[in-house]
Amino acid sequence: MTVQELIKLHPKPPSLDPDALLRCIDTCFDCAATCTSCADACLGEGDVHELVRCIRLNLDCADACDAAGRIVTRQTAPDVGVLHAAVQACAVACRACGEECERHAEHHEHCRVCAGTCRRCEQVCQELLATISSQTR
Amino acid sequence: MTVQELIKLHPKPPSLDPDALLRCIDTCFDCAATCTSCADACLGEGDVHELVRCIRLNLDCADACDAAGRIVTRQTAPDVGVLHAAVQACAVACRACGEECERHAEHHEHCRVCAGTCRRCEQVCQELLATISSQTR
Amino acid sequence: MTVQELIKLHPKPPSLDPDALLRCIDTCFDCAATCTSCADACLGEGDVHELVRCIRLNLDCADACDAAGRIVTRQTAPDVGVLHAAVQACAVACRACGEECERHAEHHEHCRVCAGTCRRCEQVCQELLATISSQTR
Amino acid sequence: MTVQELIKLHPKPPSLDPDALLRCIDTCFDCAATCTSCADACLGEGDVHELVRCIRLNLDCADACDAAGRIVTRQTAPDVGVLHAAVQACAVACRACGEECERHAEHHEHCRVCAGTCRRCEQVCQELLATISSQTR
Repeated sequence: MTVQELIKLHPKPPSLDPDALLRCIDTCFDCAATCTSCADACLGEGDVHELVRCIRLNLDCADACDAAGRIVTRQTAPDVGVLHAAVQACAVACRACGEECERHAEHHEHCRVCAGTCRRCEQVCQELLATISSQTR
Repeated sequence: MTVQELIKLHPKPPSLDPDALLRCIDTCFDCAATCTSCADACLGEGDVHELVRCIRLNLDCADACDAAGRIVTRQTAPDVGVLHAAVQACAVACRACGEECERHAEHHEHCRVCAGTCRRCEQVCQELLATISSQTR
Repeated sequence: MTVQELIKLHPKPPSLDPDALLRCIDTCFDCAATCTSCADACLGEGDVHELVRCIRLNLDCADACDAAGRIVTRQTAPDVGVLHAAVQACAVACRACGEECERHAEHHEHCRVCAGTCRRCEQVCQELLATISSQTR
Repeated sequence: MTVQELIKLHPKPPSLDPDALLRCIDTCFDCAATCTSCADACLGEGDVHELVRCIRLNLDCADACDAAGRIVTRQTAPDVGVLHAAVQACAVACRACGEECERHAEHHEHCRVCAGTCRRCEQVCQELLATISSQTR
């Protein structure tokens, strides 16, 4: 994604460990798009009534990932508490959504792929949270 | 807002205390709009270079409020952990943004009003978080 | 909504007719929230499989209204073409969503209310578009 | 992006030419992130007062791209008019933002890169619009 290049051209030095930061930005935006798509794929399935909780959590996860992605992308005058809480909310949403998608992984390939993306996004968020904690200690 | 009416017509009973819930939905969406507007008003000021941190936190707060507003609005198959983390992230963003806006309240009336909206949104979020905690205990 | 107050405190004069502008901001954000809620209420209904198109258009309409609401809210250095296209996209989404909601209005009160909000939002958008056209002529 | 994979696993056949569609999804989300980052980089520059219009259009473009990205991603029960208007609004925002970024390209590398991303996104949107037109003729 071009956004990676932009972060490197930013007038301010990155607020956090650059590798963890770039990974988090990329993964949050990808997970937001993936969950938007999985909610929509679930909505198109014949057994949509079995996928109600999955759709709901996909929509929540897309919103939490999008907010975290936008907030983490910003490098000017960051507030570490705001950053931490947004990434934390994203990690929690990814865990819940990933677990629910996993339940439908056998029947729906899109849920299987989405579960993987959510799990990876949760992990990348946790890694950034660890970086924040070690930095502010 | 019509969204209040919608919540009352929802097929599922509200996931949380209805008054605290409706107040939170309304306040989150209003605060998102107010912060979007304050960021833009700051950008239009002659002393924009003094307002850089204010603009940044306004943008973060708008994103956190919008995500929380959308997530709290949903009443079907909610995940209380996701809800809690999103509202928590919103409260943290509102506190940081409100404090920064307060610093510019004397010079910019829009920052004074926005500070009040952020403080109120933080409080309404804290009240909903208290409801969630008492319910899940 | 407090955002109305903010617009009045903005350092720049409003880019368009103030009444039409404030009405559009309010209605777009309210319609975004209402459509988010209607999508979720539909998802919670026993006959969710009958409401698939309604949910999809509700989600589209929420996204188009949110983008238009944010763009119309900004008064600093506006681009009238961008504004026009965003409000136009919002009006089109409101019309499609309102028509679909109307189809379910007899069975679902939330669809009836949402149809009304969409119709009103389409109209308010059209009024702002007329203001833009008369101004740029 | 994983979202590409998801589209291929969707229960419904793609609503539009798959190549143009996938390109549009990817580019819209990348441009949204890039514009969010460019707005923030501009905000961090010493000559921020020269970049006010650039920041404003970056924020508009991020919102228009995000809405278009979400709407184009959905393949279930699409409304071609809604799709067309959202992609059109995105193309208009990309053009305005790309032109403004171009003006600052000599002084700010991030504006140069962002201008390129906006131009490419406008083109990809125009290609999808052409596909829609040829299909509905």
